[in-house]
Amino acid sequence: MITGDGLLGPAWSGTPADGATADPAVLRALLDAEAALARAQNRPDLADAIASAEVGDLGHGGGNPVIPLVKALPEGAHDGATSQDVLDTALMLVAARARRLVLLDLASAAGALAELAREYRDTPMPGRTLTQHAVPTTFGLKAAGWRSLVLDAYERLGAVTLPAQLGGAGGTLATLSVPLMERFAREVGLAAPLLPWHVLRTPVADLAGALAFCCGALGKIAADVLVLSRTEIGEVTEGSGGGSSAMPHKSNPVHATLIAACARQAPSLAAILYGAMAAEDERPAGAWHAEWEPLRTLLRLAGGAAWHAAALTGGLRVHPARMRENLSLTGGLIVAERVMGELSRQLGKKAARELLETASRDAARLRMPLRQAVETALANTETSVDAGLFDPTGYSGAAGELVDRALDRPLKEIADVELPR
Amino acid sequence: MITGDGLLGPAWSGTPADGATADPAVLRALLDAEAALARAQNRPDLADAIASAEVGDLGHGGGNPVIPLVKALPEGAHDGATSQDVLDTALMLVAARARRLVLLDLASAAGALAELAREYRDTPMPGRTLTQHAVPTTFGLKAAGWRSLVLDAYERLGAVTLPAQLGGAGGTLATLSVPLMERFAREVGLAAPLLPWHVLRTPVADLAGALAFCCGALGKIAADVLVLSRTEIGEVTEGSGGGSSAMPHKSNPVHATLIAACARQAPSLAAILYGAMAAEDERPAGAWHAEWEPLRTLLRLAGGAAWHAAALTGGLRVHPARMRENLSLTGGLIVAERVMGELSRQLGKKAARELLETASRDAARLRMPLRQAVETALANTETSVDAGLFDPTGYSGAAGELVDRALDRPLKEIADVELPR
Amino acid sequence: MITGDGLLGPAWSGTPADGATADPAVLRALLDAEAALARAQNRPDLADAIASAEVGDLGHGGGNPVIPLVKALPEGAHDGATSQDVLDTALMLVAARARRLVLLDLASAAGALAELAREYRDTPMPGRTLTQHAVPTTFGLKAAGWRSLVLDAYERLGAVTLPAQLGGAGGTLATLSVPLMERFAREVGLAAPLLPWHVLRTPVADLAGALAFCCGALGKIAADVLVLSRTEIGEVTEGSGGGSSAMPHKSNPVHATLIAACARQAPSLAAILYGAMAAEDERPAGAWHAEWEPLRTLLRLAGGAAWHAAALTGGLRVHPARMRENLSLTGGLIVAERVMGELSRQLGKKAARELLETASRDAARLRMPLRQAVETALANTETSVDAGLFDPTGYSGAAGELVDRALDRPLKEIADVELPR
Amino acid sequence: MITGDGLLGPAWSGTPADGATADPAVLRALLDAEAALARAQNRPDLADAIASAEVGDLGHGGGNPVIPLVKALPEGAHDGATSQDVLDTALMLVAARARRLVLLDLASAAGALAELAREYRDTPMPGRTLTQHAVPTTFGLKAAGWRSLVLDAYERLGAVTLPAQLGGAGGTLATLSVPLMERFAREVGLAAPLLPWHVLRTPVADLAGALAFCCGALGKIAADVLVLSRTEIGEVTEGSGGGSSAMPHKSNPVHATLIAACARQAPSLAAILYGAMAAEDERPAGAWHAEWEPLRTLLRLAGGAAWHAAALTGGLRVHPARMRENLSLTGGLIVAERVMGELSRQLGKKAARELLETASRDAARLRMPLRQAVETALANTETSVDAGLFDPTGYSGAAGELVDRALDRPLKEIADVELPR
Repeated sequence: MITGDGLLGPAWSGTPADGATADPAVLRALLDAEAALARAQNRPDLADAIASAEVGDLGHGGGNPVIPLVKALPEGAHDGATSQDVLDTALMLVAARARRLVLLDLASAAGALAELAREYRDTPMPGRTLTQHAVPTTFGLKAAGWRSLVLDAYERLGAVTLPAQLGGAGGTLATLSVPLMERFAREVGLAAPLLPWHVLRTPVADLAGALAFCCGALGKIAADVLVLSRTEIGEVTEGSGGGSSAMPHKSNPVHATLIAACARQAPSLAAILYGAMAAEDERPAGAWHAEWEPLRTLLRLAGGAAWHAAALTGGLRVHPARMRENLSLTGGLIVAERVMGELSRQLGKKAARELLETASRDAARLRMPLRQAVETALANTETSVDAGLFDPTGYSGAAGELVDRALDRPLKEIADVELPR
Repeated sequence: MITGDGLLGPAWSGTPADGATADPAVLRALLDAEAALARAQNRPDLADAIASAEVGDLGHGGGNPVIPLVKALPEGAHDGATSQDVLDTALMLVAARARRLVLLDLASAAGALAELAREYRDTPMPGRTLTQHAVPTTFGLKAAGWRSLVLDAYERLGAVTLPAQLGGAGGTLATLSVPLMERFAREVGLAAPLLPWHVLRTPVADLAGALAFCCGALGKIAADVLVLSRTEIGEVTEGSGGGSSAMPHKSNPVHATLIAACARQAPSLAAILYGAMAAEDERPAGAWHAEWEPLRTLLRLAGGAAWHAAALTGGLRVHPARMRENLSLTGGLIVAERVMGELSRQLGKKAARELLETASRDAARLRMPLRQAVETALANTETSVDAGLFDPTGYSGAAGELVDRALDRPLKEIADVELPR
Repeated sequence: MITGDGLLGPAWSGTPADGATADPAVLRALLDAEAALARAQNRPDLADAIASAEVGDLGHGGGNPVIPLVKALPEGAHDGATSQDVLDTALMLVAARARRLVLLDLASAAGALAELAREYRDTPMPGRTLTQHAVPTTFGLKAAGWRSLVLDAYERLGAVTLPAQLGGAGGTLATLSVPLMERFAREVGLAAPLLPWHVLRTPVADLAGALAFCCGALGKIAADVLVLSRTEIGEVTEGSGGGSSAMPHKSNPVHATLIAACARQAPSLAAILYGAMAAEDERPAGAWHAEWEPLRTLLRLAGGAAWHAAALTGGLRVHPARMRENLSLTGGLIVAERVMGELSRQLGKKAARELLETASRDAARLRMPLRQAVETALANTETSVDAGLFDPTGYSGAAGELVDRALDRPLKEIADVELPR
Repeated sequence: MITGDGLLGPAWSGTPADGATADPAVLRALLDAEAALARAQNRPDLADAIASAEVGDLGHGGGNPVIPLVKALPEGAHDGATSQDVLDTALMLVAARARRLVLLDLASAAGALAELAREYRDTPMPGRTLTQHAVPTTFGLKAAGWRSLVLDAYERLGAVTLPAQLGGAGGTLATLSVPLMERFAREVGLAAPLLPWHVLRTPVADLAGALAFCCGALGKIAADVLVLSRTEIGEVTEGSGGGSSAMPHKSNPVHATLIAACARQAPSLAAILYGAMAAEDERPAGAWHAEWEPLRTLLRLAGGAAWHAAALTGGLRVHPARMRENLSLTGGLIVAERVMGELSRQLGKKAARELLETASRDAARLRMPLRQAVETALANTETSVDAGLFDPTGYSGAAGELVDRALDRPLKEIADVELPR
């Protein structure tokens, strides 16, 4: 069976976020909102009738789905509310439900990354800048940095306030009231707003930022995994790679690929939502309608990215031996900085830099280890460099200490997210 | 019945572009591509078997829908092709089918706008700049300008080349051939590419630009209609406005609202696709996957916008009397430029400007027509201004001539689009 | 004198944010960062020499401005640091300085809006949805809503943590140390980071979101002012409008126009920065370089928008008489909702709605007040509606109460921003 | 000397596009437009006076730079024009001048790439998909594909029509005329528009698309160069790499890095311009002002990217030996597809696939060449595979033929771009 629009959404299709955001989930949320309104208006029987209403095809008239929905509801439903009250509230419900899934997967990824950071705290690997080996780092620091971003995403997304919406036709609560607005929020299980926010789009903009942040944070992990998985680098492997329809041997980093795809889409979708803040009047002609689909897509992208990030981090295989092999690829150039430090102490900075630039070029040209090139250059001088300084595995600076600092940062508790033990 | 993801896509849900882009249409195109490949390989029986294959749930493994699809096809299908060959070709098929719908609606809108431009060629109305009445213009010129943009969109979208894709695992046609690539294109009904374009994403980028252009062009029409429909302005009305769940009297400019919503979303989606051009290797890890959903959404947005534009322009009601009323709102200030021209000839530019600035301020302050304020200021001088120069209905410059120029521009014929008579 | 690139940046050119972000300010910040590093390394003399260094043209080599800068500095400067340490720190300094200006202007706007909300707490005006009169609202509620968004922007921008950056060549602090990183942060006056954030771009992403939010929030105010300033609506006027080179009488809402221009640009610039989070390795090849200019532009746009918002709100002229005139434009249709409420009580909802739809159509068609149309329809029945219910000035719901709630929300104190009394 | 805003624009700062787009160049274009208008109005003396006017600080009033500019011009200048006429025309002049530079650099890059494609037409290298070795390709095909994108960019950018703008206060040519509009276009050296395009923003949108395309096309080249330059891969090297302030040995792919940075920024800037098409009225309040800076930035990014692309392609060093080494990294798995073809002929597709999947896994697990694993599996059967089929250098499919096809495509002549011989 073909469901929804999943065929072209490889990152989120089939994940829990898919079900939480598809049209049936939106319809459920719309009914939940209408039923909560009836409960807030002390009409429990009406609420029950709404909640169990059989709603067919909502058609396509009028510009929003609430207009046909109301026609399908029992008399008395939707009393005093405007379409936007119900649709905004429903979208916040959908957001709350999808957010919970994202947070759970982020928490799971953070846990897996803490394990990785601990296990590989002191495992040396090449640090790479602008695609080139720079100085050594550790896989532990890399994993700790990833976790740090995941926690940042977790906290930002968890901190977004998701309020109910109730304001009536013009946002004045004309046939409603402030206490009813607050009761409605309670009944529907969302935050009570200070003001109706029909045209004060803070909740949508906050979600946009937090969800784009989430995809970006996970995108960093994916970007690194894609580099480290390359055939020539081979420092990590996804637990279970994806196959190929043409090449039987391939094991692709599919989780990272799909996360990367999310990270490429989310920022522009968030831009649409930030742009929709400039909403004229008491209901804008276009800006509001432009929010719905991008908001859902952002929830899906973050949901898909988090799901794949949990799978990726939980199953990642790390290859310290390959890291060590790669560390030696430059014949010691990767610790040139350290050697320069030592030479500077003996020769002064300028002379040291010149000597090392020459030696580096010679080493590269003659495919000779840096140590040999430097020793050649220093032959017949009184200067000498301890051989151990050319060992790339012992130059990771404060990496271990930084890992410890990073791991001391706890996963904050977030009210409505019960974390797995 | 709830279909696809239409509930949150008010502009395109239920329009022909919806059906042409939903998952079943994508699946149809995937099967068409596989069948065309078999035909190109001279295996008509296989092609028939593919075309009529019953494909169930494609699941969610491997990162793209072709991998599970191939498993559901008869032995021998997909021979030598890679997933991307089939998915890219299918998306171009979907694009071709959706584009045809967009072009038809654009042609229809262009026709309606030509009628409006002709009928209201000399109907004066206020020209507005930065929200303020500036000088008069005509509704004919406005409609002619809208049509000009629609033709621009039509030509740009119609000019995009939509090629088939065939390259095999690495884009070298390793188990395939150039003639097969060309036969495949013929069989599937798309353009033959010069090279496999797995990572040369010109067709996708061209579509992105043309579709964003299309939404932007229609967005201009919508922006104007929204202004001119305002309760206080009332110069146009949509043929059949949308209702409100709370306010029985309202007749909203729903077509324009939904077009405006499309115009707000399309540019950012196009940005994702332009960004995906920077695709590393022979298949990028993320950039390709990031294209699918935004491309479909762009097709939907352009499809929805064009459908609503055809409806809007075909049914627009124009109110020349309100335009005339509004022209008189500033008491003649709207033709201050013309009066200044005359005064400059008599007094010099500097003195004329000073006199007119003072008179304009007096007119505004005392709620007095500009003519009276100018005549007061000129009392006891030898300067005078002909009363007719204060008439706002006779100052539309070359508007009529510009309308004629614009209408002389024909709707170009586009090969695979048969226009209605 | 032509300065910088201000000619095409009308919103921020010449505002304080211009000076705080132009190249000289960036150069100042680069030197401040280098000097602070020297101080943190207990080399005060070197720090002084750096701080007062005469730096000429930095040229264009090497891909970042720190490489040539270091060559122009005294020997010993930049010890152990990498280019990114200095440039990231400098950009955070620039951000901190520009942010302070934005926050001051936001605080000023919030103050002005509180005044407006208080003064016009109960001033009725038409509430408009989808461009049409809907139900009445009050200008006080509109101003209170604007202020609420300004406070949201103020709190989000004020809450962004701006850390110093120090990590060395690969982010391991290899020739540096954690205590030095913390001393450096103190010396340069920025937050101390938990980890070097060369490729953990939380601060940049947080700024992106907060600055885009800020422009969006102010963009809402601008969108409303632009509508309400229209010649036909005339409910507000900017204190001092902009002129026109062609039309002597015009007084354009220039502040609102320029804010609107910022709100149209900021979201896409923020998208670039969210996209740059997916930064591979220990320094990405492109993602980092792509941040610099968009970040500066965002600071300028927010700075310009906030400056114009302070000017706009501080000088806005409100026209309650025009609001009242406009309220009566629909002949009572604007309170149809209230009338329907009353009729529903007497006739049931369905009959009331039918009666009112007919009466509304009649009223619009015959240009007759709704009251008359309803009374005609009710003639010879036992139903009647109190005439007062047709008065549009007495139907603002809980608007006043909502204003009071909104005004109770205080402007939070933010550490390094000393607000004017 | 610090110029303009170049400090944070590493890709374009100091390139010819910098000078062609900086404020002095914009001011020059503004004066050129005003002078051309005077010439078109048969006032050559006035035109000369304008062209040589000394214009000081234009200040920041009124919302656009033309208002203060006109005050600085001789009496009689700007007659009948509106600010937008002059600013739009000036920006098209700036665009025309900058475009010429971009086209020249694109032509230069296309030439260099043709050389590379020819020279390395048959040089085998690993084809990579989703970061993994897939099947062999050739460097010639890669270079030919790059050239194909460069030609696409060249043709699209060259095809954009850049018209003069003249319409007067409301776009009706009220105090002007159609013949004057055409004379003005001729005098200023731009295309004559069919209609004034104040609010028909086709030229700006066309530029947006073409410039984003250009950055995307070059971004593909950069993305590949960045992969192939990696320390572990080493298949290409930029002619002259960038240095590092901390690491004396590093030679970074700086051209590719800066091009990649442009490709990350351009799409979002284009999105702003597509969004500005939805411009209400005869001059929009915000949409127009939002175009200026993004349009300039796009010209700069495309200019910088093209300049670096010309340098990169002109100096690229290619390492066929490393390509061959890398081809053998997978022990023959890279030609598994070919081996499977052969086995399928002998065993049927299903059995072949199973055998090869097992052999591939064995080969990877035991670090044994695929050939050995297959031969082991086939021992004691009648099936055998020719040893030559395991040679990765002889499996490049139609790559050579595709290179020839691609090189047959000529560089189109573009009217105002005189190409170097």
